[in-house]
Order: sequence, then C-alpha cells, then structure tokens
Amino acid sequence: MKVANTEALGATVVRSPNTQEGREGTAADIAARTGAVMTPPYDHPAIVAGQGTVGLEIVEDLPDVANVIVPIGGGGLSAGVAIAVKSVNPRCQVIGVEPALAADAQQSLREGRHVAWPAASVTATSADGVRTQVIGVLNFAVLSELMTGVVTVDEDSIAAAVRWYATTAHLVTEPTGALSLAALRRLLADGSADGVTLQAGPTVLIISGGNVDPATLCSILGAG
Amino acid sequence: MKVANTEALGATVVRSPNTQEGREGTAADIAARTGAVMTPPYDHPAIVAGQGTVGLEIVEDLPDVANVIVPIGGGGLSAGVAIAVKSVNPRCQVIGVEPALAADAQQSLREGRHVAWPAASVTATSADGVRTQVIGVLNFAVLSELMTGVVTVDEDSIAAAVRWYATTAHLVTEPTGALSLAALRRLLADGSADGVTLQAGPTVLIISGGNVDPATLCSILGAG
Repeated sequence: MKVANTEALGATVVRSPNTQEGREGTAADIAARTGAVMTPPYDHPAIVAGQGTVGLEIVEDLPDVANVIVPIGGGGLSAGVAIAVKSVNPRCQVIGVEPALAADAQQSLREGRHVAWPAASVTATSADGVRTQVIGVLNFAVLSELMTGVVTVDEDSIAAAVRWYATTAHLVTEPTGALSLAALRRLLADGSADGVTLQAGPTVLIISGGNVDPATLCSILGAG
Repeated sequence: MKVANTEALGATVVRSPNTQEGREGTAADIAARTGAVMTPPYDHPAIVAGQGTVGLEIVEDLPDVANVIVPIGGGGLSAGVAIAVKSVNPRCQVIGVEPALAADAQQSLREGRHVAWPAASVTATSADGVRTQVIGVLNFAVLSELMTGVVTVDEDSIAAAVRWYATTAHLVTEPTGALSLAALRRLLADGSADGVTLQAGPTVLIISGGNVDPATLCSILGAG
C-alpha cells in the first residue's frame, strides 16, 4: 500500500536492504550517481520544523492541551511537535510512544546516551513506520530536553487500537498510526506507565499513518 | 456492526421482518405495549430539521458551495440538507443519489407521485442504509421542490468508492456512506447522469454511514 500510494504520487520507488545502513547507503548511491538532493527522513532541522506544524495546529485549536501523545520512529515528528507545543504551552506534557519491540528512544532517553537497537528486533513490530533502530542525533538532543517520557506498547494492544479506530471511529490506521491510542489505554488502565502519568485536562493523540494494505488490515480485524 | 454499536450505546435492539410494514408494525407494537414514544426514522419535521444541521454546517464552512451530493433513503437527511443549503445559497444544487437497485426516490420525483419499490429489490443493494421502499410523504414534498435530480449508481461503483475511501482517504465507510462518491465519479466520467450536470464550483459529498462489519468491508477490499 505504501509503495502503491507513493508511486501514485509520481515517485520512483527503489527497494533497499531493510536496515538503516541499507537504506542510507542506497539513497547515498542514488544521490551520488544522479545529483539528486537527499531528503533525510527525520534527522534534519527542516524536517523537524515541517513536522512541527502538527504541534502548532494542536496548540492553535486547543491552547490548554495538557498531554500530547506522539509516536517516535526517527524522532522527527516527535521533536518538531515537542518544540512547537512546549513553546506555546510549556506546561503541556509531550509523551512519546514506541512498540516494545522497537523501544530504542525510550532506552536512549533513560540512559542519556544514543542507543541503537538491532534490526532483527525493530523490524518485528507491526508498526512499520517506527522500525528505526536509533533516533536522530538532533532529535535525541531535543527530546532529552522536552519529552516527559516514552511509553511502550505491546503488539496485541497495537492491533486492538487499529480495530477500535476501524469499527468505532471509522478511520483506517496503520499500526504506527494506532500507537498513541494504545499508549493512552495503557496509561488510563494502569494510572501510569513507564514513569509517565497523564495530567488532568485535554489529551491529544497524534495518528500518524493510514497506509495499511487491505490484507494486513483485514488480518488485524479478524476478517482476512 | 450496527447492532453491536447501537447496543454499546445502551439500546435494546429488537429484530423485525425486513420490510417497511414489518419494521413499523414491530415499533408500533412496542410503543402500544410499553408507552414508549415512537421516533420515526425520517418522515417527521423534527427529524428533517435535525438532519438539516448537516446542511447548515456545509454552508457555514463553504458559503459558495455549488453542488451537494447526498444519499436518499427515506429522505430525511436529503430533505433537511436541501432546506438548509437552499435557504442560505439558493444557487447551490442539491443532488440525490440512490443505488440503482433502490431508486424509488428517483422514480417518484420524476413521475411526480409517490412510488414504492418492492422489498425484494431494495434489500438487494449493499447500501443497507437506503433500503427504504419509499421516501416519506413530507420528504417527497420537500425534495420535489428543492432537489435538482437523483443520480443512480450500480453496485460495482459503490464497492469501488468504499475501496477508494479505505485505501486513499483512510476512512471506513459503509456502502451507503460511499454512495455520494460513486455518484460524483459517474457525473465526472459522463459529464452528466440521469439529467443532472455538476455546476462549476466547490462540490461537497455527504458521507453518511461508517458502520460496516469487518467481514463485509474486507470482502469489498478483496481481502476477506
């Protein structure tokens, strides 16, 4: 679905080995060969600023927001959202969410150092939008300062969140898009999780990703 | 899915024979036995006025709307939308859409008389929200005056519209909800359809219905 929708926008999709080195090497080769400009997926000020407009929209619509829950892959979206939201409303918590199978950002922020996870683990999560092995250097610095904490969620809870969106909110989400709901449910059920507690007040879930192929969606819905 | 979601809201769901007489008879029996107040599904001024708020929202957000496409079952939503939209913007076209298998409103409005379709035909459409055999008396009068025309769509085009919403707009729609997109596509492909031509300017599709059970959705998506 992601390949098809990307090609439908006019792109040429080139496959690479499914590791950070594989992706970056393939892209660097193409850039060197063709003179194309490399657009990094997350670790660049312009990417962080662009994704941060999501946070600006949140505080424009809901200035008194108390919690924003955002998925973390390479950290571009979460860093941009954290900068935007905290600039306007410093009391708001910005809470990250990662699959338990790809919790490199949680470990990195807890230990105060950049930790990479093995590709074999991070590629095992259904949330294919956050299969990064390590967050960006810039993003690590931003999140270290601005993020309240990172909540992890298991694969069953991600699937349950995808089902809830489809059957109740009538939204198609990919597993990555459903991460923030899975984290909210864990926080509500347990009171707190991974050192994070919700503040009283409005909570916003960022749903980032709806490109799920029908076979995957229907398997999650129990109808595939 | 509709039964489950309705019960989740606290309702007691009582099954009835799948005809207009069956539904109305069952409801009248319950009302007589229990003293409950009967809420008609479409043929009542309060229902029309309530559903008409959809039209008010459209003209508030988009005062220069040129076309509104709305599904017709019993005609409550379409009559309410037509009254609201045409009151604020008389030049806007309000266009109805029905499955070809349940085109009683199109025939009624064309012939200027109330025509009922047999249950065997209207229950054959996948668009179960518009399986009414005849539109309401009040709604017939309103639509006769305010509706530009009614476009019919076939079952394949309804399924294609459901697929488009799921894979491109990331929305779960039931077949009834996808009717307006199927009508738009027919109008764009053919220039006009069933005597209706789009005006230049903004066009709004009303998506009414997202309660589709996963098995039906996945069958339509080709993954069930």
